[in-house]
Amino acid sequence: MTKHPFSGSLPPLLSESRNPAMCQLLGMNCNTPTDIVFSFEGFRRRGGLTDHHADGFGIGFFENRGVRLFHDDQPSAHSPVADLIRAYQIKSENVIAHIRKATQGRAELVNTHPFIREMWGEYWLFAHNGHLENFRPALGQYYRPVGGTDSERAFCHILEELRQRFDSKPPAPVLFEALAELTARIRCHGLFNFMLANGDILFAHASTLLHYIVRQAPFGEAQLLDDDVTVDFAAVTTPNDRVAVIATLPLTGNETWTQLAVNELVAFRDGDIILRDRPAEPKYLPVAEGLALARAVGAV
Amino acid sequence: MTKHPFSGSLPPLLSESRNPAMCQLLGMNCNTPTDIVFSFEGFRRRGGLTDHHADGFGIGFFENRGVRLFHDDQPSAHSPVADLIRAYQIKSENVIAHIRKATQGRAELVNTHPFIREMWGEYWLFAHNGHLENFRPALGQYYRPVGGTDSERAFCHILEELRQRFDSKPPAPVLFEALAELTARIRCHGLFNFMLANGDILFAHASTLLHYIVRQAPFGEAQLLDDDVTVDFAAVTTPNDRVAVIATLPLTGNETWTQLAVNELVAFRDGDIILRDRPAEPKYLPVAEGLALARAVGAV
Repeated sequence: MTKHPFSGSLPPLLSESRNPAMCQLLGMNCNTPTDIVFSFEGFRRRGGLTDHHADGFGIGFFENRGVRLFHDDQPSAHSPVADLIRAYQIKSENVIAHIRKATQGRAELVNTHPFIREMWGEYWLFAHNGHLENFRPALGQYYRPVGGTDSERAFCHILEELRQRFDSKPPAPVLFEALAELTARIRCHGLFNFMLANGDILFAHASTLLHYIVRQAPFGEAQLLDDDVTVDFAAVTTPNDRVAVIATLPLTGNETWTQLAVNELVAFRDGDIILRDRPAEPKYLPVAEGLALARAVGAV
Repeated sequence: MTKHPFSGSLPPLLSESRNPAMCQLLGMNCNTPTDIVFSFEGFRRRGGLTDHHADGFGIGFFENRGVRLFHDDQPSAHSPVADLIRAYQIKSENVIAHIRKATQGRAELVNTHPFIREMWGEYWLFAHNGHLENFRPALGQYYRPVGGTDSERAFCHILEELRQRFDSKPPAPVLFEALAELTARIRCHGLFNFMLANGDILFAHASTLLHYIVRQAPFGEAQLLDDDVTVDFAAVTTPNDRVAVIATLPLTGNETWTQLAVNELVAFRDGDIILRDRPAEPKYLPVAEGLALARAVGAV
């Protein structure tokens, strides 16, 4: 596993992560239904309290083939919907969440990630952090955007291309290869950090910043960066549990997160990476540089 | 306007509505964003308190082109999600809600109404109350069910047929006519009370029981049947507001609700009916008979 460039250097990471000025992504993929409250608590506080993400948030939970989707145009730190999520402790094997800072499209509900569509008789969720320039694919036959974001256009374009190519779901490696090819084309248009999930697999792609951690036995204690909260995972898990958490920036300060390389695409299933497409000479962006890149294109 | 057969006879209606044994539908269509809390309060109590609907519920709110969708597999009377909806007072021009008693498909999240799909660059919501026998349309090109209900199959079939016929959204009267034709074919398979909405128009069709009321100035007081709650609409509306509420059974005891005829399809926009397709010799089902029909096919 690639070491996160900041592992061991807690103070700079801590100070950076308290002031990251971009949209944030959070994903979870597990081998057993797990509640995301601990990770979500740190994440949600980046929406309006420890950060400037005041343009709404969304979170989608897969429960088997079903999806529970919550969107809010209130900042996540103060949202009653976020309060509900904390109180409800929904258990899921696959979660995608997004705190939105509007770069394209008005900050209204229709533009709030994650977006949802059905393909091959399954629901798919998609959330994007970044900014695509001059990305105007032709009107799709199967999938059309409803709102005005580059993100939803990218999602619909990905599904459209996959659906045109495959009438039913192909095996995971075939799907992964097709997605990698599409992703490589779309990221020419700008920053394209995204997560895409169907309840079984969670795909994650980094243009700039995306980190993950796989928690499994022996479980230890974790300390949230954005909050004075500690959780002892050993007390809330069984020895067979495996939970991958994926986030723009590490959420905990006392664990080692792995950074995705620039232009790396990975697929998680059952809490671990099953497929990966990493550039031959991987480049890992320092957090400050990643944030500067986001600022430069207005994704701040 | 057709008089509800029970208007003026409060006691029998009241006792019936406290024990209706079938799924329930609730819709709202308005000319200004309105909160549905008052109607939802009576409706939700039919899910586990005043009724036997303990298989979950769902509610979808349109906000312009966006949708806020809440699903829960807990009975609506006790659901934290329903508590949130009460506390949050979401204002919407178009709402569809459903309390589910499973007849086909397991009572899990994926089978919870309303279902959502995108068509012609708009989101569509659908909820069904009833039971379709031997309804197995061929696998769609554009729309495929994810769960195992007759209801989602009917929704996907309607969208598939409309999408095959129209590449972009036709004018409302053309769409209405196509939907009426499709509905007439599908209802041959059984009970097909449904609501379908795209944020602009709300279509409602009755096989057995569906009632509506259009509230407009001068607004009066309304008293919920299922709860000791009264609201003075004059105090919470402006003189230009117009709000249509559609429900399986009337929700209030001191207002006159209009019943839809058996096999009647109507379209609401801006809080009023703009299109209707009613049989030449309309038949209005007494509530007891409608409930008995539902029981006979297992939609109890």
